[in-house]
Amino acid sequence: MALIVQKYGGTSMGSVERIQHVAAKVAGFIARGDQVVVVVSAMSGETDRLTKLAKEINPRGSAREFDQILATGEQVTISLLALALETQGVKARSYTGWQVPIHTDAAHRKARIQKIDPERLMADCRLGIVPVVAGFQGITGEGSVTTLGRGGSDTTGVALAAALKADECQIYTDVDGVYTTDPRVEPKARRLDKITFEEMLELASLGSKVLQIRSVEFAGKYKVPLRVLSTFKDGPGTLITLEENHVEDPLISGIAFNRDEAQLTVTGVPDRPGIAAAILGPVGDANVEIDMIVQNVAADGTTDFTFTVHKNDYERGLEIMQRIAAELGAKGVTGSTEIAKVSVVGVGMRSHAGIASQMFKALAAAGINIRMISTSEIKISVVIEEMYLELAVRTLHKAFGLETAPV
Amino acid sequence: MALIVQKYGGTSMGSVERIQHVAAKVAGFIARGDQVVVVVSAMSGETDRLTKLAKEINPRGSAREFDQILATGEQVTISLLALALETQGVKARSYTGWQVPIHTDAAHRKARIQKIDPERLMADCRLGIVPVVAGFQGITGEGSVTTLGRGGSDTTGVALAAALKADECQIYTDVDGVYTTDPRVEPKARRLDKITFEEMLELASLGSKVLQIRSVEFAGKYKVPLRVLSTFKDGPGTLITLEENHVEDPLISGIAFNRDEAQLTVTGVPDRPGIAAAILGPVGDANVEIDMIVQNVAADGTTDFTFTVHKNDYERGLEIMQRIAAELGAKGVTGSTEIAKVSVVGVGMRSHAGIASQMFKALAAAGINIRMISTSEIKISVVIEEMYLELAVRTLHKAFGLETAPV
Repeated sequence: MALIVQKYGGTSMGSVERIQHVAAKVAGFIARGDQVVVVVSAMSGETDRLTKLAKEINPRGSAREFDQILATGEQVTISLLALALETQGVKARSYTGWQVPIHTDAAHRKARIQKIDPERLMADCRLGIVPVVAGFQGITGEGSVTTLGRGGSDTTGVALAAALKADECQIYTDVDGVYTTDPRVEPKARRLDKITFEEMLELASLGSKVLQIRSVEFAGKYKVPLRVLSTFKDGPGTLITLEENHVEDPLISGIAFNRDEAQLTVTGVPDRPGIAAAILGPVGDANVEIDMIVQNVAADGTTDFTFTVHKNDYERGLEIMQRIAAELGAKGVTGSTEIAKVSVVGVGMRSHAGIASQMFKALAAAGINIRMISTSEIKISVVIEEMYLELAVRTLHKAFGLETAPV
Repeated sequence: MALIVQKYGGTSMGSVERIQHVAAKVAGFIARGDQVVVVVSAMSGETDRLTKLAKEINPRGSAREFDQILATGEQVTISLLALALETQGVKARSYTGWQVPIHTDAAHRKARIQKIDPERLMADCRLGIVPVVAGFQGITGEGSVTTLGRGGSDTTGVALAAALKADECQIYTDVDGVYTTDPRVEPKARRLDKITFEEMLELASLGSKVLQIRSVEFAGKYKVPLRVLSTFKDGPGTLITLEENHVEDPLISGIAFNRDEAQLTVTGVPDRPGIAAAILGPVGDANVEIDMIVQNVAADGTTDFTFTVHKNDYERGLEIMQRIAAELGAKGVTGSTEIAKVSVVGVGMRSHAGIASQMFKALAAAGINIRMISTSEIKISVVIEEMYLELAVRTLHKAFGLETAPV
């Protein structure tokens, strides 16, 4: 008998039939003797519908009022799922954020969970009642309703699992786990049985959007075993765990990629202290987010400074850079939007120096030129021409033997 | 400067434009220096939509879960109106039932208000903030969301006005006041400037569905001056007051009518104690609601027993009566669905015995036969053939001089 927190997203709550399907799934766990606490999102599309309605009336209205409206989305699905569980012969009781209660700070629309009181939910579990909790929402000390921001239901699930000391937090989505890379790019991509939190963070931030990144951080911090599974397809999913890989485990867990970035380079920048701040300060001031930053050692008293921004921010970044370059007496500004980033991720590479050269060799053999390189402890990223993206992903997937499961 | 509670119904909240119209209306009162607390219903149709959704999943689900879902309807409109007030430069803050809080008993779907804590709302008013409160809902001692049942938003408005000791409770609807009778039947029907609570109760229960009857009882009990006005048409509306009519006031306030009833008569019933209970008991057990009951004094040891039920219950009532008549050894059962009830209502008739004869004379002069008569302190009702309904209403409206305002 295990205590499991299960989180079902908006797609899983998208229709009467799907809600009934989820109820049957939960009933199966109860029949096997598990205790289950369920967290749900609003029906897919509902949060957008409510936001649109509120904005139509007042595009710049109080965040408190937006949260009050948005929170109704989950209030409907918790009750619908509780009603569906009743038809399966399972006792259930719905809880809004304030009914649990889930205490948050007062940062409306992007609130952070401060404290969860698990007593009522525990009492239900002991009585064989399934608590169905609204994700994405909480309550301030003053009694106002807050929302955790987009995708926050995952965070609710993990935070509840931590507060309840649950054996596992299961996140049900429309994919059946975390893959070695995007199967749409490499059909040989393989579902991973497990992955570490650190690898998951790198894969998530690099574009494998299976889980909301904050929930993974949260799970890592509170040591909550997290499992990603499909609502609609049975299977073990992928377990995200604290355990380090063992010797026999693969060095590389997956290949992540991102086509949304653009590159900006300031050439011939005078090499003196404070130059990086002088270049990046104005970009940050303009609310342009920066991803990779690369600066090589200087030669002849000047250096080249390169960074990447979202493609949508390219024109604005270019304008700022041209102004800055003139002020700093740099040689010029170049850039491109036709780039892509490919990364290999794996905790195993920490102890294996050869991964980088293996990666660069494989790309070279495929005739792919590397424009930029950036590394972290468990990840190596390269920027290449966008047209080579699919080829690069497939080449690396094969080079690191990801299509075959480890023995 | 007055403290006013204003209640706006589902039609007034029916679209973005209408919500903006209400906001402008409230802003007008604030500009004149009044303090306003607003109570709103869900958008028209929303409660039905949510009920349908819940019933599709579980037609016999927990009332607690139905309430949890239904309460979202007003949670959306309170925030939308608060947002709309902000665009008018008026500070506003939305409150669900539990945020006020409005304490109720635990009778889900038909809860009764037990206690309202007006402190937060008063504090807002003192700061120039307009509290926008969700009608129709409250919270139990255990923290579950309740609803007051259909039309309960009027009751919320009156209860809030009582708790806040407001100067007036204004109920905004799609009619501009209470009329001497239905203007669709008698175009000369006139809006009443004021009416007593008792008259309003008789008019409401007899089919002038302007206000929910429970809210009128409530307002009478707590001596809250109640005013019915139109959201869409300016005007003073009708004030519902505790004051008794004075000598110069009219004897009759209005003509009410109802075409939804059917008549059932058991003839030749043995005249002995307990006979009424023997007849009506099985009808009540079958959940058939009874309106008028008439039994005349017995002659020859037997009596005729007549009552009216809703037309939808006629067939079922007839079946039960045929069985009962046989058991009791009654002569037979007759009935008709082609009847209508017409009533004259007015506190003035208490001290004037002549009203009944004036009424019967007027109907006789128009050739209308009376099938049944029933009277209370401030009302005389007759049942006639349905085809004569409009003629009877116009005849009585004229006979009591209702088309002209009292001097």
